[in-house]
Amino acid sequence: MQGIDNFKSIIDKYKVIFFDAFGVLKTYNGLLPGIERTFAYLKEQGKEYYIVTNDASRSPAQLAESYHREGLNFISADRIVSSGMLTKEYLDLKVRDGIVAYLGTRNSAHYIERSGLITLPVSEINDSNIDKVNALIFLDDEGFDWFADLNKTVNLIRKRTIPVIVANTDRAYPLTVSDVSIAIGGIAAMVESVVGKQFIRFGKPDSQMFMFAYDLVRASAPISKSEIVMVGDTLNTDILGGNKFGLDTVLVLSGNTLAKDVNTRITAMGIVPTYICNSAVIEGDDLGF
Amino acid sequence: MQGIDNFKSIIDKYKVIFFDAFGVLKTYNGLLPGIERTFAYLKEQGKEYYIVTNDASRSPAQLAESYHREGLNFISADRIVSSGMLTKEYLDLKVRDGIVAYLGTRNSAHYIERSGLITLPVSEINDSNIDKVNALIFLDDEGFDWFADLNKTVNLIRKRTIPVIVANTDRAYPLTVSDVSIAIGGIAAMVESVVGKQFIRFGKPDSQMFMFAYDLVRASAPISKSEIVMVGDTLNTDILGGNKFGLDTVLVLSGNTLAKDVNTRITAMGIVPTYICNSAVIEGDDLGF
Amino acid sequence: MQGIDNFKSIIDKYKVIFFDAFGVLKTYNGLLPGIERTFAYLKEQGKEYYIVTNDASRSPAQLAESYHREGLNFISADRIVSSGMLTKEYLDLKVRDGIVAYLGTRNSAHYIERSGLITLPVSEINDSNIDKVNALIFLDDEGFDWFADLNKTVNLIRKRTIPVIVANTDRAYPLTVSDVSIAIGGIAAMVESVVGKQFIRFGKPDSQMFMFAYDLVRASAPISKSEIVMVGDTLNTDILGGNKFGLDTVLVLSGNTLAKDVNTRITAMGIVPTYICNSAVIEGDDLGF
Amino acid sequence: MQGIDNFKSIIDKYKVIFFDAFGVLKTYNGLLPGIERTFAYLKEQGKEYYIVTNDASRSPAQLAESYHREGLNFISADRIVSSGMLTKEYLDLKVRDGIVAYLGTRNSAHYIERSGLITLPVSEINDSNIDKVNALIFLDDEGFDWFADLNKTVNLIRKRTIPVIVANTDRAYPLTVSDVSIAIGGIAAMVESVVGKQFIRFGKPDSQMFMFAYDLVRASAPISKSEIVMVGDTLNTDILGGNKFGLDTVLVLSGNTLAKDVNTRITAMGIVPTYICNSAVIEGDDLGF
Repeated sequence: MQGIDNFKSIIDKYKVIFFDAFGVLKTYNGLLPGIERTFAYLKEQGKEYYIVTNDASRSPAQLAESYHREGLNFISADRIVSSGMLTKEYLDLKVRDGIVAYLGTRNSAHYIERSGLITLPVSEINDSNIDKVNALIFLDDEGFDWFADLNKTVNLIRKRTIPVIVANTDRAYPLTVSDVSIAIGGIAAMVESVVGKQFIRFGKPDSQMFMFAYDLVRASAPISKSEIVMVGDTLNTDILGGNKFGLDTVLVLSGNTLAKDVNTRITAMGIVPTYICNSAVIEGDDLGF
Repeated sequence: MQGIDNFKSIIDKYKVIFFDAFGVLKTYNGLLPGIERTFAYLKEQGKEYYIVTNDASRSPAQLAESYHREGLNFISADRIVSSGMLTKEYLDLKVRDGIVAYLGTRNSAHYIERSGLITLPVSEINDSNIDKVNALIFLDDEGFDWFADLNKTVNLIRKRTIPVIVANTDRAYPLTVSDVSIAIGGIAAMVESVVGKQFIRFGKPDSQMFMFAYDLVRASAPISKSEIVMVGDTLNTDILGGNKFGLDTVLVLSGNTLAKDVNTRITAMGIVPTYICNSAVIEGDDLGF
Repeated sequence: MQGIDNFKSIIDKYKVIFFDAFGVLKTYNGLLPGIERTFAYLKEQGKEYYIVTNDASRSPAQLAESYHREGLNFISADRIVSSGMLTKEYLDLKVRDGIVAYLGTRNSAHYIERSGLITLPVSEINDSNIDKVNALIFLDDEGFDWFADLNKTVNLIRKRTIPVIVANTDRAYPLTVSDVSIAIGGIAAMVESVVGKQFIRFGKPDSQMFMFAYDLVRASAPISKSEIVMVGDTLNTDILGGNKFGLDTVLVLSGNTLAKDVNTRITAMGIVPTYICNSAVIEGDDLGF
Repeated sequence: MQGIDNFKSIIDKYKVIFFDAFGVLKTYNGLLPGIERTFAYLKEQGKEYYIVTNDASRSPAQLAESYHREGLNFISADRIVSSGMLTKEYLDLKVRDGIVAYLGTRNSAHYIERSGLITLPVSEINDSNIDKVNALIFLDDEGFDWFADLNKTVNLIRKRTIPVIVANTDRAYPLTVSDVSIAIGGIAAMVESVVGKQFIRFGKPDSQMFMFAYDLVRASAPISKSEIVMVGDTLNTDILGGNKFGLDTVLVLSGNTLAKDVNTRITAMGIVPTYICNSAVIEGDDLGF
């Protein structure tokens, strides 16, 4: 049985910290009280940090702004790595022209737009333009009519042999203390099983997310994976993905994984974090207040 | 490589014929032209026949009526075995009282109603009645708001430890010559993977469907499984299920399985019908016209 | 949270009792102490009982004898329903001639032998007889060389489009208080995923097992499913299968499911037994001793 | 329907070529006749190339030597990226001390050895050393007793909550023109489903393989992903993985994917290569001979 470690003494051992967002920095109630102390400390100590998040509903700039609105100014757009960014990189590299059809809000599609590519919601695909559709993206669970547009999506994929990208691997996300919502990753899995084709997924635990962040870190100075620690609340995304990429990992108990279940879950899933902490908040005591 | 057999000479060898409905007796265009000749011949020869269908959207009486409207009067309600009937039997045996919540049209729910049980669409479940919900049924893909009610369904299942029944195992069904619709079985599979619990499924290829039909046949006279043949258009439901139950099977090429793909698919899936026929229609020539 | 019920007062309510074998009547240590009192009581009360077991390693006669050797004479061969019996029924109905290749001990194959069919271990299949192989059966995890014969099995299935039958759905079975063994169902699942074809599986939770037992009961007198109760130690085989077939179910805590985990597991899996009992042993106190 | 492209004119467009090994450079018969012309041309044109292979049975040096023995001297150890190398990196970063238990030949384990770590075959794990086992690796399908050691492996994983690494994701590999062998990836999938824990897998299509190769390329000079092309014979490893990483891809028809099936398979799987070529061999004609 693993004991509970002190978060500050862990991050003291690493040069770079990767943080998951939901369940680690914030919950459905807003920011975790005291989380700004953690970032103030990281700044003061000259440590680098990145937010590594399964989110394709908004651009990095919009994600950063959402932290600023709540008073956390430490998180700038260039410190955010999202599954939406991997999706954009994929489109830039692999889809030269034509239409990219998507499921999600208009806003979620703004970020993947670029010159030479037409971005259209699935609802606007019809017989006159279907032959120009060169990719389909599952971006967000909102912004479309599930019944009409999911049925339309199934038939689009049956008719066109094109890459289908799932921009967020999560199957559900928390909405309130007691309720969850089906995420676009869950919807995509249904469509995949109905059409029997294989989709391309971006998001933790896949190592491509971690590599994207690792490349950002290395852009300024060389660093070994052993100097980076990943902090997350979910065993089968943050911890499994971090471990596999070769990082040390911290499981925090402020989100998906509750203190009462943590040891049972680790044993049942066989996914072992390097450390377990109550949360990513550094207590005033630890800072000598 | 299997050759194509003559349908009439096959049914001459059996006492009882089980038919799948969609792709065998009818398509999105209505009845298969000439299919009435098959039933006239069966009647004339004193053979028994049953329709064994993954359908919970209507009662057997309503299903029979839909054949009568198209002019096929040979199919009466007592010759229909549907996955909806298994669902009703389950509720009658296993759910004593309280509320049965469902996804589907009001009409699909009429058939499962009975005294002592309150049948409510998921949209009408709320904090005041959730504690009385004793079962949840996936009946039909229509009749509800996918976004609102599927999210509500996920949370209902997370909060109540109750049996969840999927009244139709199909993941999709044909709508036109080129389009399909997501079926309630596909939707249920998504919800199941989001909540991580195990649902109860009724429908082919599960042997309970075949047993229900077999019990109906045996009610009048004893019969061996070797005297029954199952006719279907889909390898992994009709043929797999019929084979497993111990019946001989006929794959017809009038629906899901096309003549050009049939041998590739049989080899790829490893599901082998006893016979292959172009369709279940008996040609005038065969009858000596 | 479900409470613990008294086993005797439950079986007093039913006419027929179906028992799982391992974890209910016996463990790796032999018979459950006192289990003979349960059967003496059933006999005295004129209740019917059947053993419904995922086992294809021995014939019903051999299985019955194994109880007699331990001093439990109440269990005769005609009260045993095994997944091996379904396998035999399948072969009798569906495989007319040729060779049935198998993985398992010579003894496990004796029971499926019949005139007109040649039963050969996979190790004896070669270029001269492979074209006559008309079925392949996974019978038992012992009696063959896993490396040589599983590789040979994969290639046999790739070369011959034949039914592949898995005579026991279990993936593992307990060997000692701390160790398990990989069961033939686990081995078959690996081979299935390597060859990409669909196998036919016999065993709980599939309803065909329960139907076989139900047919035996009905052979002497008509009975409703509501008069039968299934007693088992495993949620996703005994209880799921019993529930789905429409039977009331008793989960006993003498095998796979431990008292400390029972409520967590029921909630996690969403499989709900009608009753929970410590074991299927009737205490002397209950009998008025 | 995609047409067949000329291999030389494709590689003329890229700076770096990644090659799969089996089915592209060699088959069970040895090297593809003429493949040395391809490498001579790449050398002459100053293009970089790497072999990206799901293989953990030998070290890069041994893999290179196997090409040299057949007369292909262009492939040196530093041009090979194998799933075994990712496994070694994982152990170096994540397993500090104790025992690493493995399934595979003694030779396959040499490469992962390092000071401070004891490498033991599963057969040598016993009650006296099991508590020191800190990782388990599936390396190769040979070198151990499947029956004894796979059962031992299942129980080791049940008793120790440790990372389990699968050093090769392939489920099968070709042995002769007509036969395949079960690969360690297939064996690992069986053990994973029996124990219900989540393993760590290294190998294509996972992007970590491509990133490892990409990092090697970038070590000498900066390069964009758009300047690299991946050449492989398997849609769901080489092509899916290459596409997802953002590379252009060439499907060759000299291995797993046959000319007669290629368009059916692309449509069925929804995995689309940038180009299709008969093989990676450059014809003399193309070189102006």
